[in-house]
Amino acid sequence: MNYQRFVSPETQFYQLLEPFALESGDVLSRVQVAYRTWGKLNATQDNAVLVCHALTGSADVDQWWEPLLGAGRSLDTDQDFIICSNILGSCYGTTGATSINPNTGKPYGSTFPRITIRDMVRLQAVLLEALQVRSLKLVIGGSLGGMQVLEWAILYPEKVKAIAVIAAAGRHSAWCIGISEAQRQAIYADPNWQNGNYTEQPAQGLATARMMAMSFYRSWASFSDRFGRQASNAIFEIVEYLHYQGRKFVDRFDANTYITLTHAMDNHDVARSEGYSSALQQICQSALIVSISSDVLYPSIEQEELAALIPNATLATLHSPHGHDAFLMDMTTLNNLVVQFRGSLQQSRSAIPVTNSLHNLSAARP
Amino acid sequence: MNYQRFVSPETQFYQLLEPFALESGDVLSRVQVAYRTWGKLNATQDNAVLVCHALTGSADVDQWWEPLLGAGRSLDTDQDFIICSNILGSCYGTTGATSINPNTGKPYGSTFPRITIRDMVRLQAVLLEALQVRSLKLVIGGSLGGMQVLEWAILYPEKVKAIAVIAAAGRHSAWCIGISEAQRQAIYADPNWQNGNYTEQPAQGLATARMMAMSFYRSWASFSDRFGRQASNAIFEIVEYLHYQGRKFVDRFDANTYITLTHAMDNHDVARSEGYSSALQQICQSALIVSISSDVLYPSIEQEELAALIPNATLATLHSPHGHDAFLMDMTTLNNLVVQFRGSLQQSRSAIPVTNSLHNLSAARP
Repeated sequence: MNYQRFVSPETQFYQLLEPFALESGDVLSRVQVAYRTWGKLNATQDNAVLVCHALTGSADVDQWWEPLLGAGRSLDTDQDFIICSNILGSCYGTTGATSINPNTGKPYGSTFPRITIRDMVRLQAVLLEALQVRSLKLVIGGSLGGMQVLEWAILYPEKVKAIAVIAAAGRHSAWCIGISEAQRQAIYADPNWQNGNYTEQPAQGLATARMMAMSFYRSWASFSDRFGRQASNAIFEIVEYLHYQGRKFVDRFDANTYITLTHAMDNHDVARSEGYSSALQQICQSALIVSISSDVLYPSIEQEELAALIPNATLATLHSPHGHDAFLMDMTTLNNLVVQFRGSLQQSRSAIPVTNSLHNLSAARP
Repeated sequence: MNYQRFVSPETQFYQLLEPFALESGDVLSRVQVAYRTWGKLNATQDNAVLVCHALTGSADVDQWWEPLLGAGRSLDTDQDFIICSNILGSCYGTTGATSINPNTGKPYGSTFPRITIRDMVRLQAVLLEALQVRSLKLVIGGSLGGMQVLEWAILYPEKVKAIAVIAAAGRHSAWCIGISEAQRQAIYADPNWQNGNYTEQPAQGLATARMMAMSFYRSWASFSDRFGRQASNAIFEIVEYLHYQGRKFVDRFDANTYITLTHAMDNHDVARSEGYSSALQQICQSALIVSISSDVLYPSIEQEELAALIPNATLATLHSPHGHDAFLMDMTTLNNLVVQFRGSLQQSRSAIPVTNSLHNLSAARP
């Protein structure tokens, strides 16, 4: 399956000349990075904003975060040089399981190595170096994107000036790991899976994984309001909807890629040699931490912990009935939160405004 | 696969002589009901308590609700004649997909008809008639058990004196239906499934369905506290745990049975010709409605709605981090709630005590 048709014509590509060493010790040759940019890099090369996408996203921020992109918005096309690259291991233009392994001439498929969030971030750093970006005014992302943001803050403290972490945690919980594993098992149960060496997608397994994931991405209230117990021809509308989402996903995403990326998420833990608290306490940037009130997958307790541990953090709640996916649904509200945060950065630190929706935790702590 | 080995030796069996007509119009012949009893029916035949079990439960209340069973407990073996029967469609002794269809001499398998919660309840009523039970002091159950309890209250207002509904709703939500469907799809993805005509269980699919269900039965906090990110040999403990639960389930439960019972749950809606509110408003019995604070699957909003609509309802919250499964885990606390409720029934209605954990909603309403 060729996923190029999902890569927009505006996409640019950067080809690494040097081999790219992974955290595991494995080395990838001739890595390619697909990316998009908006706005212009200024003369001092310090107006860049990096957007990190979520699990099944792409570099096309204008497709999935349009209300945040534009003059005067969170991603200010007048002021910022905005960059988003497809993550390592994905299937939308950057090297991943569907890419040709230059050592064999065949797609990596199931032989694509295990990667980490940190690998994704280090590859983005290589791209930014090539684009001559000296520093980042902001690194922003939701879900898996937010995990990358935290790694950016820790790995490149001198480059990153501010971060916005949305609906994420500093480590994947047992809850999320278990849910990932159940989804992977649905893929493995499909006879087409063939241990990852499929010629045809394990469509039913992958669709099932997506149906499962979709439930966790939303909420009781979201599904109740939209579907209730409505049915046609004795089939519940929610069932139709999940099947539709499953089919759509099989068409646009690759099973080995899904396995690769969910493993990377499960291994996400900003703590390496040190502990979790220490890792977060060393984050020196101004940080906006956005929690979604109805998020089943990454519940508020996780963002409260982030905000309590990161020294200069501001916790904001996105009130929404839509669950985890609210960061891709309630985008106007999200945009307002981020714009407000960015505004506060321009003022002196001592004068950060505290409003109804933005609570500066540092200020509140005794 | 023979599930008789999971049916305890104390189990008794009742064989229907008349055909049993289902709500769908289908008719089952020679239906068998497996049941257990504790205590003795009194001379006035009015000291019976009916226990309704959950999705994968059995008649063996002493195995799954032991702390609620005994002298002075919720199910008072000194005072009550306690009955629990394996539900219609299950595989623990009552007629279901694994039973022999007397018309063909072969197991029903995938040909077992669609059934409803109401069918389960009507079959229990036939058994109680045969046991010469005239009235029920209490009908109690959690989850699918609670759904049966509500149908009991509506179908047999003259027989049922009080009900206790735990972690359930009067209708299956879009959320629950979607989650059921994703689980069924995992079973269908297994090559052994063979459209339900399997000779060997679709083990991987069924285990995956169970892993998925287990996540929804518990909670973020429950998994975090117990497993965190602990791993051995690079395998997370939560992953090991879910695999173990999956294997155990495949060993003890049948895939067609799981399909049958999850469909019955999805079709659960106490409203038939009338609306949801009207159906609940006609419930005349004293009702204890127990909500579990961390229940992801049947969130508190559902029990609040039940308690608001049932005229003589008492809402109690079981505070627990364990999620939906708390009704099978925090059993001492649950027992206390039920004992307190039963105590209140013996007093005059005007003197129902209102305590910290029990709030009589009828009294609170303007």
